[in-house]
Amino acid sequence: MKRKITLKQIARELDVSISTVSKALRNSAEISEDTKQKVQAFAKLYNYKPNNIALSLKNRKTNTIGIIIPEIVHHFFSKVISGVETVANKRGYNVIIGLSNESFSKEVINMEMLANGSIDGFILSISKETLQLQDYHHFNETMSQGMPIVMFDRVVPDINCDKIIVDDFNGAKKAVAKLIKNGCETIAILTTKDYVSVGKLRTQGYLEALQENDITPEANLILKLDDTLDYEVHLDALETEIEQLFKLNPSVDGVFAVNELYALTAMKVARKLGLEIPKDIQVIGFTDGVLSKHATPSLTTVSQHAQQMGEKAAHLLIDKLESENEDEEEVYQTLVIETELIERESTK
Amino acid sequence: MKRKITLKQIARELDVSISTVSKALRNSAEISEDTKQKVQAFAKLYNYKPNNIALSLKNRKTNTIGIIIPEIVHHFFSKVISGVETVANKRGYNVIIGLSNESFSKEVINMEMLANGSIDGFILSISKETLQLQDYHHFNETMSQGMPIVMFDRVVPDINCDKIIVDDFNGAKKAVAKLIKNGCETIAILTTKDYVSVGKLRTQGYLEALQENDITPEANLILKLDDTLDYEVHLDALETEIEQLFKLNPSVDGVFAVNELYALTAMKVARKLGLEIPKDIQVIGFTDGVLSKHATPSLTTVSQHAQQMGEKAAHLLIDKLESENEDEEEVYQTLVIETELIERESTK
Repeated sequence: MKRKITLKQIARELDVSISTVSKALRNSAEISEDTKQKVQAFAKLYNYKPNNIALSLKNRKTNTIGIIIPEIVHHFFSKVISGVETVANKRGYNVIIGLSNESFSKEVINMEMLANGSIDGFILSISKETLQLQDYHHFNETMSQGMPIVMFDRVVPDINCDKIIVDDFNGAKKAVAKLIKNGCETIAILTTKDYVSVGKLRTQGYLEALQENDITPEANLILKLDDTLDYEVHLDALETEIEQLFKLNPSVDGVFAVNELYALTAMKVARKLGLEIPKDIQVIGFTDGVLSKHATPSLTTVSQHAQQMGEKAAHLLIDKLESENEDEEEVYQTLVIETELIERESTK
Repeated sequence: MKRKITLKQIARELDVSISTVSKALRNSAEISEDTKQKVQAFAKLYNYKPNNIALSLKNRKTNTIGIIIPEIVHHFFSKVISGVETVANKRGYNVIIGLSNESFSKEVINMEMLANGSIDGFILSISKETLQLQDYHHFNETMSQGMPIVMFDRVVPDINCDKIIVDDFNGAKKAVAKLIKNGCETIAILTTKDYVSVGKLRTQGYLEALQENDITPEANLILKLDDTLDYEVHLDALETEIEQLFKLNPSVDGVFAVNELYALTAMKVARKLGLEIPKDIQVIGFTDGVLSKHATPSLTTVSQHAQQMGEKAAHLLIDKLESENEDEEEVYQTLVIETELIERESTK
């Protein structure tokens, strides 16, 4: 089956014009779906290679972007998708979404499914399990096949691709510096275990802010929570851990939480222990979601500009898809989105 | 190219066994992707028809479910997707998601894109614009091509397909009856304009509860809000409308809101006007999202069991996809999910 075949032979065999074959191989809208499928099937069967270059992905443009996110019930990821959608629509692209559910194998399956001709490129955030396993072969393979990837939020240095990240380190540092400036002397951090890159960076920002203000970090004020637990279900477990921290460290007068849920739960536990917010204890969260805005008291928080992050990711990917310099060496950029401290009622 | 070809001839031509050809045509996991593609391409090219029946969609199983939802930044839809995912994973299916963004044309584009070989069937909720236009041709065309659809939440009687709905009417009725039982005499409803089927049903439930309790409905207590506005952006506009209602009707002592955001905004406005909840005014919402649980006071609400809705939708669709009775006449079911009143602090 490996004999070499020409455009002319395909055209003669299928009884269509050469121009039709050429257009069908480039997936032109002028050609009927049926004809395109037959031509492409024939070309594949006989390993037809135009100009001896493999029929590149660029010639089968779907004008669709694939997004893979770790979680769907999550305001941050929803807002990023909303940002991608906005730009994609403006620039004539469609969006489809796959979920990894924080699972390595689901991430691999989703990528294979979408990369199989449905999309032109990916915008994705890495699953927790993938970060734990440190197995990134599926990203590298996808890119080596000519399909670009833009990663956002959860990224790793080991992968060469375009990245959009939040300035987690400085966002956390700013938040903790604010607590110190507001008079807090004993500041606890509610964070995730270190393998979650963003949790680790936010913890480092916390430590840096303390050190710059000559406060010695105390291990018992750093609560690293197991965020593989679904706390929407196990809210009690979360409350118990935070309550213990407060009881063992009654001098705590400031809390920095690396997400909204930890921050809101801290406020709830503090109230339960008879502490007033922000009088007795001040709280700052991370992520400006609906919970922060509607909480009572409303939560001072570090906004990640998720919508903007999605918009920039879409521009980055589409620019790459539409760039003419296919043969030039790839240059990857990392775009850092500045965070913003949104002051509300949970701080003085 | 229309000569008839047999399994045996395909096997001989491609130098593989008949069993391989058969399995490849059924997309078996035992066969390599490359072989499957070649066999399927060859079969397509020579119009191979097993048992003289067109290679049906069932034989090109993708084991993927397509979900189309109107909005992504929405707890209810996220939870439904989470429910679909849970069951899909258990039963060996993958899920991909498209967004209509409440737009008719985006809904059509997404359906065409996904129906084009990427998925086996749809689970979807209709966009507001489609409901306004009452143009359902894309659903009917998709189904007539043999691709089943299960609709949830926003459905219309005009379309024959499996449906999962929430008992919006009785959910609303129960909520309003609870307010009456708790002593409320002047109950306002914050609802959507009527073309949103669920808003309309909840309004009817409200009216029914009043009538059963010999309370005459008053037009000025029924606030039909324009929910095409993005109230995350236009929160002020929403507050102003609700504040006007309260000011013009100072006797209001109960509020039933058809969603969480309206309910929380009503509580905020009530507090601003110096009213205590639930002492002076009691509030019940609809949808048991994160906002309801974390609000202060926490919100009494009608739970739609979104996760369960997604799970049932997935079972319904997969059962249909895997049913053997292809030739029997289609029987469609409508599954009604009972609502549950979750009592919290915003009612007495």
